[in-house]
Amino acid sequence: MADTSWTSSAKSLKGVILDLCGVLYDSGEDGGTPIPGSVEAVKRLKASDLKLRFCTNETQASREKFVAKLQRMGFDISVCEVFSPAPAALAVLRDRGLRPHLLVYDGLLAEFESVDKSNPNCVVIGDAAENFSYQNLNDAFRVLIGLEKPVLFSLGKGRYYKETDGLKLDVGAYMKALEYACDVEAEVIGKPSPAFFNSVLRDMGLEPHQVLMMGDDLVNDVGGAQHCGMKGLQVRTGKYRPSDQEHPTVTADGTVDDLAQAVDLLLGERGGVSP
Amino acid sequence: MADTSWTSSAKSLKGVILDLCGVLYDSGEDGGTPIPGSVEAVKRLKASDLKLRFCTNETQASREKFVAKLQRMGFDISVCEVFSPAPAALAVLRDRGLRPHLLVYDGLLAEFESVDKSNPNCVVIGDAAENFSYQNLNDAFRVLIGLEKPVLFSLGKGRYYKETDGLKLDVGAYMKALEYACDVEAEVIGKPSPAFFNSVLRDMGLEPHQVLMMGDDLVNDVGGAQHCGMKGLQVRTGKYRPSDQEHPTVTADGTVDDLAQAVDLLLGERGGVSP
Repeated sequence: MADTSWTSSAKSLKGVILDLCGVLYDSGEDGGTPIPGSVEAVKRLKASDLKLRFCTNETQASREKFVAKLQRMGFDISVCEVFSPAPAALAVLRDRGLRPHLLVYDGLLAEFESVDKSNPNCVVIGDAAENFSYQNLNDAFRVLIGLEKPVLFSLGKGRYYKETDGLKLDVGAYMKALEYACDVEAEVIGKPSPAFFNSVLRDMGLEPHQVLMMGDDLVNDVGGAQHCGMKGLQVRTGKYRPSDQEHPTVTADGTVDDLAQAVDLLLGERGGVSP
Repeated sequence: MADTSWTSSAKSLKGVILDLCGVLYDSGEDGGTPIPGSVEAVKRLKASDLKLRFCTNETQASREKFVAKLQRMGFDISVCEVFSPAPAALAVLRDRGLRPHLLVYDGLLAEFESVDKSNPNCVVIGDAAENFSYQNLNDAFRVLIGLEKPVLFSLGKGRYYKETDGLKLDVGAYMKALEYACDVEAEVIGKPSPAFFNSVLRDMGLEPHQVLMMGDDLVNDVGGAQHCGMKGLQVRTGKYRPSDQEHPTVTADGTVDDLAQAVDLLLGERGGVSP
């Protein structure tokens, strides 16, 4: 049964931010598969009067390649609508004149091509899956422990995500490993960092209370958005687990079966036509 | 210059506990090399009136194989003098009727041969070095996250250790990764767990204030021993770093260049003959 109390604020909304993995599609070895109804749901949101942006901690590939993959799945989405951590990290590295040692997916390296990586004075980790070998994590550790003041950036801090073959450890787990080993606190770039959400709101030209964030990650999507003053809706797809509903600190403004149901309820409440 | 204030209590000591890696030898691909003077130092301690035990978080091999390696390096040491986490873990698993999923060095598996590992209801991690692949850590994660109440045992919680080719991430970093991913707190078996130190004291038949612990790990050796009421001495070999001397919570009772110097000072103060 759908919890519809959150729709009472639907009429005052001016924008929606969607998480991608676990909301639009489930990732997997094969590149991933769309979640049923989500291609159509994105189309309907785009046709509405709501502003739409996509906000992801996806770091498996450059933003260009990642968006191309979503387009091949049938999603109407373009690069400039997608906010992801790597371009944000690049800006921070440039601002602060830092030279990164990278521990990321091979596919993400292209985003950092233009940065000086010689004699590194910081470490950037993103989800790296199989690249999180002992050797690679140890190499990153040695760079950090060799710095007088270790600087660690983490592209997101998710605990785990869901691929078609099951749950997989996310970058947050490895961030914690390096934090502990080097007695340092990572700077998180990506959700749930307020700086990251605020950059999306700025681009939309909207105030937080005018925007609804939808995601499958209770802490990083829902809690992160709420912390910035947005409403946060959780979908029961992707990494959603029933125990999320008893989380000690984060309570979603609403929970829906999937994106399709959320869009039905949202547009229905705003006076749109149901499909 | 040697800090000798700690020797004022030398006369009242009745026993010494030595950490192994970083105190007696440096580990490495080749099996490791004795730290200069340490073979002789152990011999002198054994010839003294002090009781001697060895307390290690070593989990690369079964205790039998590990002790055999030390004997080949020239150390006068026997299995019954060595306390290590795997036998302690085995006792806990049996007490509580738990079936472990193991993420440890291949060489340690023999210690757990007798335990039912089918349909696991807990995870035991030890240092695993190259076995800490993404796949293996993810397998352990999936076992934990699939349990109604995840139970994680960690054989020690060291941040890193030193091998002949440099610093290496220890089990503590991976413990933190799994703790974060599964929102669980690990039960640590090994140093600095008081239960572990107390089992050594019981075996010696001594009170904590009668015993001096020597190690290269400020937190796990020195701090752990002090927490139990022993004196804690740090050696400047192994993973020792100068910044240890400004640690926010742990201050060693003394710091010495190496085991040889510690034994010189200790036995000298007790009226022994210098070599």
